[in-house]
Amino acid sequence: MTEKLMKAVIKAKASPGFEVAQVPVPTIQPNEVLVKIRAASICGTDLHIYNWDDWAASRIKPPVVVGHEVCGEVVERGSAVTHPEVGDFVSLESHVVCNACSYCRTGQGHLCENTELIGVDRDGGFAEYIAIDAQNAWPNPPNLPLEIAVLQENFGNAVHTAFAVDLRAKKVLVTGAGPVGLMTIAVARAIGSRAIYATDISRYRLDFALKMGADLALHATEDDVISTLTTETEGEGVDVLLEMSGAPSAIDQGFSMLKPGGEAALLGVAPGVIEFDWNKHLVFKAAKVVGIYGRRLWETWYQARGLIRSGAVDLSPMVTHTFKLEEFEQAIDVMTSGESGKVMLVP
Amino acid sequence: MTEKLMKAVIKAKASPGFEVAQVPVPTIQPNEVLVKIRAASICGTDLHIYNWDDWAASRIKPPVVVGHEVCGEVVERGSAVTHPEVGDFVSLESHVVCNACSYCRTGQGHLCENTELIGVDRDGGFAEYIAIDAQNAWPNPPNLPLEIAVLQENFGNAVHTAFAVDLRAKKVLVTGAGPVGLMTIAVARAIGSRAIYATDISRYRLDFALKMGADLALHATEDDVISTLTTETEGEGVDVLLEMSGAPSAIDQGFSMLKPGGEAALLGVAPGVIEFDWNKHLVFKAAKVVGIYGRRLWETWYQARGLIRSGAVDLSPMVTHTFKLEEFEQAIDVMTSGESGKVMLVP
Amino acid sequence: MTEKLMKAVIKAKASPGFEVAQVPVPTIQPNEVLVKIRAASICGTDLHIYNWDDWAASRIKPPVVVGHEVCGEVVERGSAVTHPEVGDFVSLESHVVCNACSYCRTGQGHLCENTELIGVDRDGGFAEYIAIDAQNAWPNPPNLPLEIAVLQENFGNAVHTAFAVDLRAKKVLVTGAGPVGLMTIAVARAIGSRAIYATDISRYRLDFALKMGADLALHATEDDVISTLTTETEGEGVDVLLEMSGAPSAIDQGFSMLKPGGEAALLGVAPGVIEFDWNKHLVFKAAKVVGIYGRRLWETWYQARGLIRSGAVDLSPMVTHTFKLEEFEQAIDVMTSGESGKVMLVP
Amino acid sequence: MTEKLMKAVIKAKASPGFEVAQVPVPTIQPNEVLVKIRAASICGTDLHIYNWDDWAASRIKPPVVVGHEVCGEVVERGSAVTHPEVGDFVSLESHVVCNACSYCRTGQGHLCENTELIGVDRDGGFAEYIAIDAQNAWPNPPNLPLEIAVLQENFGNAVHTAFAVDLRAKKVLVTGAGPVGLMTIAVARAIGSRAIYATDISRYRLDFALKMGADLALHATEDDVISTLTTETEGEGVDVLLEMSGAPSAIDQGFSMLKPGGEAALLGVAPGVIEFDWNKHLVFKAAKVVGIYGRRLWETWYQARGLIRSGAVDLSPMVTHTFKLEEFEQAIDVMTSGESGKVMLVP
Repeated sequence: MTEKLMKAVIKAKASPGFEVAQVPVPTIQPNEVLVKIRAASICGTDLHIYNWDDWAASRIKPPVVVGHEVCGEVVERGSAVTHPEVGDFVSLESHVVCNACSYCRTGQGHLCENTELIGVDRDGGFAEYIAIDAQNAWPNPPNLPLEIAVLQENFGNAVHTAFAVDLRAKKVLVTGAGPVGLMTIAVARAIGSRAIYATDISRYRLDFALKMGADLALHATEDDVISTLTTETEGEGVDVLLEMSGAPSAIDQGFSMLKPGGEAALLGVAPGVIEFDWNKHLVFKAAKVVGIYGRRLWETWYQARGLIRSGAVDLSPMVTHTFKLEEFEQAIDVMTSGESGKVMLVP
Repeated sequence: MTEKLMKAVIKAKASPGFEVAQVPVPTIQPNEVLVKIRAASICGTDLHIYNWDDWAASRIKPPVVVGHEVCGEVVERGSAVTHPEVGDFVSLESHVVCNACSYCRTGQGHLCENTELIGVDRDGGFAEYIAIDAQNAWPNPPNLPLEIAVLQENFGNAVHTAFAVDLRAKKVLVTGAGPVGLMTIAVARAIGSRAIYATDISRYRLDFALKMGADLALHATEDDVISTLTTETEGEGVDVLLEMSGAPSAIDQGFSMLKPGGEAALLGVAPGVIEFDWNKHLVFKAAKVVGIYGRRLWETWYQARGLIRSGAVDLSPMVTHTFKLEEFEQAIDVMTSGESGKVMLVP
Repeated sequence: MTEKLMKAVIKAKASPGFEVAQVPVPTIQPNEVLVKIRAASICGTDLHIYNWDDWAASRIKPPVVVGHEVCGEVVERGSAVTHPEVGDFVSLESHVVCNACSYCRTGQGHLCENTELIGVDRDGGFAEYIAIDAQNAWPNPPNLPLEIAVLQENFGNAVHTAFAVDLRAKKVLVTGAGPVGLMTIAVARAIGSRAIYATDISRYRLDFALKMGADLALHATEDDVISTLTTETEGEGVDVLLEMSGAPSAIDQGFSMLKPGGEAALLGVAPGVIEFDWNKHLVFKAAKVVGIYGRRLWETWYQARGLIRSGAVDLSPMVTHTFKLEEFEQAIDVMTSGESGKVMLVP
Repeated sequence: MTEKLMKAVIKAKASPGFEVAQVPVPTIQPNEVLVKIRAASICGTDLHIYNWDDWAASRIKPPVVVGHEVCGEVVERGSAVTHPEVGDFVSLESHVVCNACSYCRTGQGHLCENTELIGVDRDGGFAEYIAIDAQNAWPNPPNLPLEIAVLQENFGNAVHTAFAVDLRAKKVLVTGAGPVGLMTIAVARAIGSRAIYATDISRYRLDFALKMGADLALHATEDDVISTLTTETEGEGVDVLLEMSGAPSAIDQGFSMLKPGGEAALLGVAPGVIEFDWNKHLVFKAAKVVGIYGRRLWETWYQARGLIRSGAVDLSPMVTHTFKLEEFEQAIDVMTSGESGKVMLVP
């Protein structure tokens, strides 16, 4: 029997860059489904893998098909799968978890100690097909636009962040208006924030932030953020900080604006060990802080679904560019430019 | 020295009805302010007092100036008062609390064991002036419309109810679309509910519910509520019940629609001891239930302010009728008819 | 091949009583383990099945092996099982859940819509062997006494109840000192309750309550509970009610003693629809109430393990009687007498 | 009229050291009480003031009577005071708060923006008398030992820390076994921790930690903390970190031992800006962190009372040395030695 082949973007070897290659269409286990991919989108993580930085070099074992933000159609399912159905239009959760460790058994699957991430630890979705656990294939309405379906996984980060704190009637500072920051702004708006302030170092993204629902968007270094927000908040500071940048200066600026007793959710990845004003920002301020990793499995998916289906959040502005799979170099250039929302690849 | 007099609507004696009378303008204590009333609105509690039912007879000691939903201008303040300022436009919290009992000392002032309610336990606001503790006078922006300023106290009930549960991305059933139910619908919409279903026995109020943000409004007895909501929720039931009616049939219907593990907030006052399916509605369902009394002092006021100032909630449709103080009989007729939102009185 | 047989206590037909029978040793599915039973204990549910009351008649399809509180040794495991190991000493969770419904997927497995209860919906553990999902077999230390290992499942109800509220430094009323109530008292003590008051209608159980850590144990009808507890709490009432009886009079007494803003956890199963003072006990009191069903899967198991291993809770007094499997009639007599703790059966 | 004089320990001028002086007995405001001091204890803050470090120099305006951990008898009360009574034996809360700012009005009095700290911002309690707001004088049972009564304020820090997280059935690491750390260990034990590990750099304090309820006490630099705790926790790490030291190395060690999804409460004051592994310790770990400042007003006081009156916490070992007021130099020497628990001064 001849093995079926498919087109895929792969990390072929331990050095910078990706390649388009012909690889075997994956076969499925009894608990898996085979998904014919309709679209995928590029994440910051993909850029790390492309650039082959230290993190990538320490984690990735080439060759691997990259890409973990994926939607498509179920075309085959394993013998033990009861749902989704063949024909269902699904978005994928990228973390394949074990259901057996103490985290999975206590509603903390996002912290599973046996997690495998598609496109990183196993083959991903910049390809024509992917094999994945049935529980990771989340059914969408058949008519959900591709541009929204493809964002579910990444949107989950935004929902997880915004839902980890209490934003109702609160003044909120979002530091970092990259794609997740932008979607977090939309969620913060949808769930009743009183005021949303955004900071970034890209004017393009600051404009985007206003479009997604921010009341005010400030350049983190060129505008006088502290003075402006002090005035805006009548000297009180913000109730909540959503830290989406990982930049030490933004972390410091954000916590400086946080009022005593305030809450902070931290998704941005910092460049390693940083200097931090422990007493002022945490202890004396009685701050409540939570680190955000991934999405809650599967609570966040239900929440994200609710926000989209009710129309409370409109993600349609988010995908700004679409390329074919083999145009991945152009896609990565656009993504790197800082002048884009999400960038989508179609097979 | 001649005592200054003012016009007031009073409960003059232990029997049904109110009267307009000339009474002394109140004098203030060191910790109090004198407020020149610009508007007041009628609450269900006022109807109980008017009708002199058992509750009213057991609680009220005539004569008393009635009315507890009030806004006006600070015209004088006691020696110990630091704010608000004379000239401030304020809305009043109706519960005068002691700041000294264990409830007040642990952030539960709404449960203060020494509470006095204006218009019930002491003179209220259907009058030209009222004396009240400075902490009960909540400053508004000078240009806040009277029709919104007068609602703050009652709106607080709605905010307290909606904020007592987690409505984000949830399907919500609001049983009872009286004024507080209607404002609760608006809050539920503002803080990201996925779907809002309302029930009532007045078609006028069901229409009003749709205007305030409900997705679906059903007649509690003439429509097939259970079947319709079962279909709407794909057989799952609602995530949250906001019980605003106190009607035993609505309580039963509401809990029947509540999914296992769901949350319920209970504001509606029932007619005494009722029959309730304990196991089905609470124990086996693992329901989480919270009774709602008043507003959280003063957290709810900050939350209410945030929702109004951000524009997340628009209360402008709520006041449907305005009368002069001496037309209180007409006002009460309109209020009793069930064909009104809030009814406002101006001195 | 000859089928292997084993001894089991079964519900043979749709009428009162149990029988001892020889039935086939169960065979296991790929995800299951076969457990050689070392001990089982009797639950109130077993009495309902024995007596064939309405609930039992509506739910049970004879013949079925009864019993759901079980411990034993893993003697065989299916091809897909990675743990526990053969030879492990395990206690069983009685609810076999699907891992796939929305409840299972959001950390609420105890509310799984496809639950099967061993000894009720499928064969249970008053037998020599039981086949069960590997995830339901919870490993114990090899030297854990049988009398404690057998209680894990039932102890989980107690832990779930006590952990559903905040008992730290609180005054607590436990209404109902049956086995779960007694274990709940021990948990309440272990996690820092300020005072624990117990009520029951059996003097035997009231003595038992004191032994398990209650400060005061009152006869619900013969002692003046309200007056005594009012004095004990300096007129304030209790901070928390743990309702373990289901008796309408205990529910009313318990809520009457609950202070405003207090918490209540409800595990006791009432005799159907009951009369309840809605306003006084819930709405005006601003009570926070939670229904308790089963145990949280699997968080409660981790919590229960922690309490036992640290020595914070000592369950050794709980099993008061032990019988052989074929002496089940005597065991049921003792259990029914009200003069017992837990009653254990050994094969 | 001759002014009455009393003995007091004062910070007389802007340089190191204290002096004993004769100062006027304070007079009280209408809302204050005069307390005849029976005992006071020394806090780390007092050492900062004694040593006149940067913090002290920036905050203190000499002359001021020092000392903020105080108990005594109410001997006079202002005209507006309703309780406590003259003759009551009281412990003092050291933060005098305004009851009027947004923090005070939302149950966060410990963050009051107008706080005055006795012994720092106004005259304190190393003296014969102190004048203080009536609400700051917390009544004790008349027979509460002085050695326990004097600790209430400081014990409140321990209770606030331990109650800010969920310790029930959890494995807990307490970094820093100074007086507050030691009392926190006792609280953690009382509310059901599964295991309590303590670290410090004083062998005296490690022994003390075991006496207060720790299961294991390790020298932070001489023992292999990471390896030992990894073994103790079966490779999982601890569920909760209570950081009581402020030492950067302890902070790093503590967070390194914290398991994913774990909780941390931070009371220790670090030496300014520190280096911190943001991603590893917060973001990727999905840690939940809360800064601890003071005590919750007044919820912590009720909780502390409950733990003491129930006997759940025994503070009697804590005071290890007692001196007369004029022996303050010796008291400070003992306190500085690291070979003491709490040091008490009596007038």
